Amino acid sequence: MEAVPVHDRERVDDLLTQDLKIIQSDDVFSFSLDAVLLARFCSIPQRGRIMDLCTGNGVIPLLLTTRTKAHITAIEIQDKLADMAQRNVKLNRLDEQIEIRHGDLRQALDQIGHGLFDALTVNPPYLPVVNGDQNSNEHFAAARHELFCTLEDVIRISSRLVRTGGKVAMVHRPSRLVEICALMRQYRIEPKRIRFVHPRADQEANMVLIDGLRDGKPELRTLPPLIVYKNQTEYTDELADVYFGRRLTLDHDPDSY
Amino acid sequence: MEAVPVHDRERVDDLLTQDLKIIQSDDVFSFSLDAVLLARFCSIPQRGRIMDLCTGNGVIPLLLTTRTKAHITAIEIQDKLADMAQRNVKLNRLDEQIEIRHGDLRQALDQIGHGLFDALTVNPPYLPVVNGDQNSNEHFAAARHELFCTLEDVIRISSRLVRTGGKVAMVHRPSRLVEICALMRQYRIEPKRIRFVHPRADQEANMVLIDGLRDGKPELRTLPPLIVYKNQTEYTDELADVYFGRRLTLDHDPDSY
Repeated sequence: MEAVPVHDRERVDDLLTQDLKIIQSDDVFSFSLDAVLLARFCSIPQRGRIMDLCTGNGVIPLLLTTRTKAHITAIEIQDKLADMAQRNVKLNRLDEQIEIRHGDLRQALDQIGHGLFDALTVNPPYLPVVNGDQNSNEHFAAARHELFCTLEDVIRISSRLVRTGGKVAMVHRPSRLVEICALMRQYRIEPKRIRFVHPRADQEANMVLIDGLRDGKPELRTLPPLIVYKNQTEYTDELADVYFGRRLTLDHDPDSY
Repeated sequence: MEAVPVHDRERVDDLLTQDLKIIQSDDVFSFSLDAVLLARFCSIPQRGRIMDLCTGNGVIPLLLTTRTKAHITAIEIQDKLADMAQRNVKLNRLDEQIEIRHGDLRQALDQIGHGLFDALTVNPPYLPVVNGDQNSNEHFAAARHELFCTLEDVIRISSRLVRTGGKVAMVHRPSRLVEICALMRQYRIEPKRIRFVHPRADQEANMVLIDGLRDGKPELRTLPPLIVYKNQTEYTDELADVYFGRRLTLDHDPDSY
């Protein structure tokens, strides 16, 4: 096996699930709970083609391989991250299942084509671009702020990448839910399942998982709330099961795929 | 005090809150948890004018009087229910605070005027009209199905009844949330606070409370989930406190009104 380089100021972490390893770096990108939950929440087919946009170091495609044999294409615009994602694929010997593409998702339609994917996942930057409040680290800034693509770009392009009946799953901030629903509808992705994540049972949601169906009929299911902590320090059983890979799906719907 | 007639097949129930009584009838209309929760969730001013649409037997205006001194106008299209609501106002000696109007909310703008209300509440029929599945009892049918007004009617008219900066609070089924958000935006009511009600902590939501601001800026808060039962038979503490009037508001926001 060809050795996978791990650069200065990078480390190899356990992805906590089924012996997967992941190269990451506090300077550039480390995976978050958001990505893990999205990879466990999304509806995906067992075979076919999946797209992951804004893939970062490739954490979502890596996690998806524990749930499906489908081929996964993943796009990342930042060269350092796309390179890290590529090394993560090699490190886990997943070259046959995952293809990392370094590029701009706004060119994906021209480069890859329309309507080819059965499902799509995206953990986009959460914050609009506002003068002066971007993180000074360019990598974090692009991961957090809509520097390279707006929410509308992400939804418009997602809608065109998936086939009719294809699924689009996103994790985002609940504060922007109305905008997400409006844009999904505008681009013919009907929100079908939603799950809110609350740090504690008595706190407001700080994350929302949403799964839409291209050309679907209106009818939304609101899943049970996902609570992260049961007290000051301990994860709830459900969260711990998902985070530590004892459970591979947050999907309670026996009918989904 | 003038005696308030209670008709055959009607009964006087305790409204469970602050000595309020309510006339209702299983043949026509009995108040539901939905109405109680909406009356405890909505943002209302201490003074000014409030409108309640689709008031039924007037349960929401009655409950609102425990939270505010504002004047409340309430509209009901069914004559039997409007009459019952009127008797409920008298029974509780609230004639000075509550005005019941028998009529069609679609004529409210012409009859009452635009932009006069500081807040509005509405517990509309939840189900679209579909041939053949309406309840055979006409009163229940109108309370449950959009026979007299569609969701779009309700939101369009609500938007015009409240002033700029006025609040519109609604209870509905989560399955229609995307439509509600889309219509609210279309009619310039920006959803600002949302709370999902789950029968149990591990079940999907079956009710959603949503509060919007006329001409508000986009930014939605998702409140902690409201769980109804803690086991097969017992209410959770929060639900019991609200239902039995030990707590008059579901609003955790110190800034709201």
